[in-house]
Amino acid sequence: MKKSDVIQMIFHHGLAKEPQHEKGLAFAPTNIALCKYWGKRDTELNLPMTSSLSVALPDKGAMTTLSRRHEENDLIVLNGKELAYDSVFVTRTCQFLDLFRPEKKWYLQVDINMNIPVAAGLASSACGFASLTSALNDLFDWKLPKRDLSLLARLGSGSAARSFWSGFVEWHAGSQSDGMDSYAEPLAYEWPELHVGILSIADHEKSVLSREAMQRTVDGSILYGMWPKKVARDMVILRQALQVKNFSLLGGASESNALTMHATMLSSWPPICYFLPETIAAMHKIWDLRRNGLEVYFTEDAGPNLKLLFLEKNIKKVEEQFPRIEVIRLFE
Amino acid sequence: MKKSDVIQMIFHHGLAKEPQHEKGLAFAPTNIALCKYWGKRDTELNLPMTSSLSVALPDKGAMTTLSRRHEENDLIVLNGKELAYDSVFVTRTCQFLDLFRPEKKWYLQVDINMNIPVAAGLASSACGFASLTSALNDLFDWKLPKRDLSLLARLGSGSAARSFWSGFVEWHAGSQSDGMDSYAEPLAYEWPELHVGILSIADHEKSVLSREAMQRTVDGSILYGMWPKKVARDMVILRQALQVKNFSLLGGASESNALTMHATMLSSWPPICYFLPETIAAMHKIWDLRRNGLEVYFTEDAGPNLKLLFLEKNIKKVEEQFPRIEVIRLFE
Repeated sequence: MKKSDVIQMIFHHGLAKEPQHEKGLAFAPTNIALCKYWGKRDTELNLPMTSSLSVALPDKGAMTTLSRRHEENDLIVLNGKELAYDSVFVTRTCQFLDLFRPEKKWYLQVDINMNIPVAAGLASSACGFASLTSALNDLFDWKLPKRDLSLLARLGSGSAARSFWSGFVEWHAGSQSDGMDSYAEPLAYEWPELHVGILSIADHEKSVLSREAMQRTVDGSILYGMWPKKVARDMVILRQALQVKNFSLLGGASESNALTMHATMLSSWPPICYFLPETIAAMHKIWDLRRNGLEVYFTEDAGPNLKLLFLEKNIKKVEEQFPRIEVIRLFE
Repeated sequence: MKKSDVIQMIFHHGLAKEPQHEKGLAFAPTNIALCKYWGKRDTELNLPMTSSLSVALPDKGAMTTLSRRHEENDLIVLNGKELAYDSVFVTRTCQFLDLFRPEKKWYLQVDINMNIPVAAGLASSACGFASLTSALNDLFDWKLPKRDLSLLARLGSGSAARSFWSGFVEWHAGSQSDGMDSYAEPLAYEWPELHVGILSIADHEKSVLSREAMQRTVDGSILYGMWPKKVARDMVILRQALQVKNFSLLGGASESNALTMHATMLSSWPPICYFLPETIAAMHKIWDLRRNGLEVYFTEDAGPNLKLLFLEKNIKKVEEQFPRIEVIRLFE
């Protein structure tokens, strides 16, 4: 099945030929997966092998502004810098816009501003494609429900499906070949004591992009065969942890899930290793702190940075141990 | 089945009640596994889940000297230092000696001298138990074939089964519950160009001993389920690589096997991570060198040190890149 078929299904009354407004605007928060999305069952539609579960960082993410353009091409501006036409980012963005303009009747200037580093394992493509999708919804006045926006954004970047809500979000793997059951939705749990700390190890772009790393793992890592089982188990634990607010359960399952994802990568060939020396040093420090009674856990995405998980009562202690950490309140 | 039953089977004419000589002496080389022994199917008899394949470091290992003692206890001296009676090392050594003296009629001074760091991932217990077994063979004049010594040493430490030969050695997993088919034997391949370099990252004793790490992985790592499949595949590749002397094949399979073993550990809980920051830095350096055309691979055991694999023609280049490396010729 092709992306254009999915568009047909969502816009069954037909796509508008032209934007309704001169401008469209939207913000989408980035999200940190506690149970990771790792591996696709359909690479065209970005359908995941497994469900995943994330929490949004409410003030971190991407703001996208769309403006009609009268030249016959798009202009993509990232953090105020015009991007080269042949860059991967521009290609992916324009291909996404093309889904909504089969007749190529309109072009846009796309201004994306992110307050997180790009392609450094902080889900920049997730909030990027979510904000782009929401901004298109605004520009065209589609008035689509978030579930449909989630389906659409997934066509640009899988984890973007999860970036339409604050708080905890579950993205359902689904089982249909058209992916119409593979959308995200918010989980009705609030946990004001829960905090995330971003421990930036390096903010340069990663050498292996996550979609390539994911594919190489699915294709070449023998350990990947156990990943769906691991996710099934962790999803049960995480939902349980949210329900009873058991932080040890939440932290443990999140950390183990992340380590298992990285483990599957180490086993691919050539090996994929997002750990940097500083990543490993921070992990050992976290394990030492835990052995000494400070409950702090970590998760790590396709990049060297760690995201620490801890409760409000321990913010000071965590900041003392990691002076460069950026603490983020997840709930107002 | 108990260890004492195995002893019965090997010494079917009965164990000598007393040593034949006043002294027994033997050296055993340490061995580096290219395909790792990771996980037991029987913890009492140290029967492995899978076969494994190693290469001996001919001049690195343990020299054990046994002397009759007239006190009613054993004295264990490691590298010239008398060990405390309650240390793990002494307990394991005396329990091993007890297998051969059901009537407690004799006691020994056991002098073990190793020219490798103890319990730092350099297979110190492998060469330790192999040399102890050979020294007992000498002391008692058992005249056992090496295959039987391999069976006996395995009862002390699994990988000791492989430390009775120079060159390449395969330890068969076997399938019998008494383990009589789980012995090692030499592989008739010589490869004079192949070299190993020991890159010492840290020589302090590790915080999680390998036998504990192994058991925690088997019991608690969901990824371990794929390990036997990985080994089966790597053993085929390694035997093929030895037969046709294809170094890329040998290096790649060895590195991937080691990384997969460490990957299974990362996925246990609490996580087990023998990587130190310097280990990861060295790995990235090796991958960079390989991308730039220098064929060097690594393997890593239950410790932070790396063992590099490369061909004779590249010794100088490897030494330039890793000034502290200790290069070891494997074949005369």
